[in-house]
Amino acid sequence: MFKSKIVKLVVNDVRFPTSLEQHGSDAMHSDPDYSVAYVVVETDADLKGYGLTFTVGRGTEIVVCAVEALSSLVIGKTLEEIVTDFSAFYRLLTSDGQMRWIGPEKGVIHLATAAILNAIWDMWARAESKDPRKLIRCIDFRYITDALTEQEALGEVLVFKKRGSTFLGWTRFKVKVGADLQDDIRRCSLIRKMIGPENTLMIDANQRWNVGEAVSWITTLAEFRPLWIEEPTSPDDILGHAAISKALVPLGIGVATGEQCHNRVMFKQFLQASALQFVQIDSCRVGSVNENLAILLMAAKFKVPVCPHAGGVGLCELVQHLILFDYISLSASLNNRMCEYVDHLHEHFRSPTVIKNAHYMPPTDPGFSCEMLDESVQKYGFPHGDVWRSILKQKGSQDNFSE
Amino acid sequence: MFKSKIVKLVVNDVRFPTSLEQHGSDAMHSDPDYSVAYVVVETDADLKGYGLTFTVGRGTEIVVCAVEALSSLVIGKTLEEIVTDFSAFYRLLTSDGQMRWIGPEKGVIHLATAAILNAIWDMWARAESKDPRKLIRCIDFRYITDALTEQEALGEVLVFKKRGSTFLGWTRFKVKVGADLQDDIRRCSLIRKMIGPENTLMIDANQRWNVGEAVSWITTLAEFRPLWIEEPTSPDDILGHAAISKALVPLGIGVATGEQCHNRVMFKQFLQASALQFVQIDSCRVGSVNENLAILLMAAKFKVPVCPHAGGVGLCELVQHLILFDYISLSASLNNRMCEYVDHLHEHFRSPTVIKNAHYMPPTDPGFSCEMLDESVQKYGFPHGDVWRSILKQKGSQDNFSE
Repeated sequence: MFKSKIVKLVVNDVRFPTSLEQHGSDAMHSDPDYSVAYVVVETDADLKGYGLTFTVGRGTEIVVCAVEALSSLVIGKTLEEIVTDFSAFYRLLTSDGQMRWIGPEKGVIHLATAAILNAIWDMWARAESKDPRKLIRCIDFRYITDALTEQEALGEVLVFKKRGSTFLGWTRFKVKVGADLQDDIRRCSLIRKMIGPENTLMIDANQRWNVGEAVSWITTLAEFRPLWIEEPTSPDDILGHAAISKALVPLGIGVATGEQCHNRVMFKQFLQASALQFVQIDSCRVGSVNENLAILLMAAKFKVPVCPHAGGVGLCELVQHLILFDYISLSASLNNRMCEYVDHLHEHFRSPTVIKNAHYMPPTDPGFSCEMLDESVQKYGFPHGDVWRSILKQKGSQDNFSE
Repeated sequence: MFKSKIVKLVVNDVRFPTSLEQHGSDAMHSDPDYSVAYVVVETDADLKGYGLTFTVGRGTEIVVCAVEALSSLVIGKTLEEIVTDFSAFYRLLTSDGQMRWIGPEKGVIHLATAAILNAIWDMWARAESKDPRKLIRCIDFRYITDALTEQEALGEVLVFKKRGSTFLGWTRFKVKVGADLQDDIRRCSLIRKMIGPENTLMIDANQRWNVGEAVSWITTLAEFRPLWIEEPTSPDDILGHAAISKALVPLGIGVATGEQCHNRVMFKQFLQASALQFVQIDSCRVGSVNENLAILLMAAKFKVPVCPHAGGVGLCELVQHLILFDYISLSASLNNRMCEYVDHLHEHFRSPTVIKNAHYMPPTDPGFSCEMLDESVQKYGFPHGDVWRSILKQKGSQDNFSE
């Protein structure tokens, strides 16, 4: 298996018309069609890898185009070549002398990198087991050695500790805020009453505010005792998040962010500046497991809990692996730790997440759990799958729809 | 002219095979083919707009794909609608409820935004004149009001001051460093001898180093008295640049960065953290004049000189307008200010830059100076222009070449 050579990379634009029912809309993303750039890597042996990155509709074709552009760096490599020095392969993908310019390590080209690397990790997980030293060698430490060295990283990887507690049901709930203050007060009040004083409320502004605006708005909502405010301002504004964090200390409210934090260099600074109190990693925004390992290790070193972003399509399937690694090998604690979950679109995966008593159950199938059903890929393929053909026909034409 | 409606947007992938002669290569971009995603916006009247964003070869097709995806937001609009509330149009392009996800305001999608907005500015400049209040209304102040408010911005726009001094020739020179310390010492020593003690030397590492590494490397090169070190580490690392800046104060060396700084929120923090001493704006990386106005105004408020990045293809043509605005309306000083220049590829433009006595001469043709010659667009079009057909044929096949 290890000697298998990658001979083909297929990428599909798969979109679910979730905007028709307003699923997942928020203050900044009003009409998302949950979508994926779905990658299948084929080898000359009986081994495949399945990966994806998550998008919200229009623009998925740009990510597909970027995956195709990167594919020449992947085809012809053996799994052995890649994983023997995985950080070198990571750097090959992210540092191509020409394509690096249109990132670097951010936006479309990094989403494409994530999709491809997710497929490689899936393939590797299907092929063999791993050890901590191999994991550390997957990380590109460039630009983060001032926060975490290779030696320190190895020290952070602790032995397995037995899970100590369980929760009996869902106890943590999130409300979207930021569009209208009076309406936010109404909804937060209602939900706090519904869930009672003992359960946890979190609020999410999806980057709606300027820095000063965030502080005053959250101060008004403080009476509902949210654990955190998520994405109060621009995902790029480290110093802004630091200012907000500082202002919220007296109110006992933390700042959570990360679902649009674009790489390890940004997470490093959020940690260095005490700009967040909850690290929300995402399985598809940064460079797959490789870069998420660096982020998890830095969070462990800075003693900040990790609470992954999930939902979308496939994000729960992917990120459950990362949070299990964090629990088993790094934090060994559930204190202030949770993993987002949305019960939506799991039926399109061959090994969907299993939730029992409001907990993710460890996946049992080999791989990274994001292989999709062939019929889903066909049916929801954009724009030629049955579902889209019918929607676009109803809308009159594809041009009208995309406007 | 003002009522002209945009009816068509054409985007071309134009690449110059500069890697064949190793033009423009640096520590991180070893084989650039200087390229552009070249946009022509057509109206129902006798008015067109020409814009571009700069790339270095592979991946330009991804930017082209992104321009096409954004084009539906532009077609059908009149110039009047756009410029009457230009910051709203800017936000429309950068905040599409679906495409925002694959940025936001960074990487491929932001380069595409830049190309389109550059064409709109070109069109507007051809159509009519502007006043300061209109300029301020072009800026999206979201996420930067903690550093600069609309009111303050208007205050920064000063009256024209007469240019006070001229230079007789080229007096400032830049050396690429970062690949090999002994070789850097050799070349810096040589160039310092050539240019004498009175002229200015600058060094550029193109993001080669980690933070600690940068400080020690630059310390070794301090004896050659560089004015600045450019891009010492990751363009995303605000706190890293701040640490490097602080360490270099005793050596009298400043930090310059910005050519890969992806938006106004990042520049805001570089200024807030005193992480740079020279702001290197780029005409194609951020959202055109709109976003560069915000950056120029913040730099003026923080009293940090602006020294634009240029070179590439068309960057000199575009950025000369921005630096003239900075000089005339904001800084009114040439102290520590300069604008990069490379004498390369200007022959493909209808109104190329004019340099006299090592100074940019103010452009006299209406527009943003990036209209290309039709024959250049044809000949260097990728992959079907004559030049590429011949190169790809020699290389055997396009597939082999792109690997």
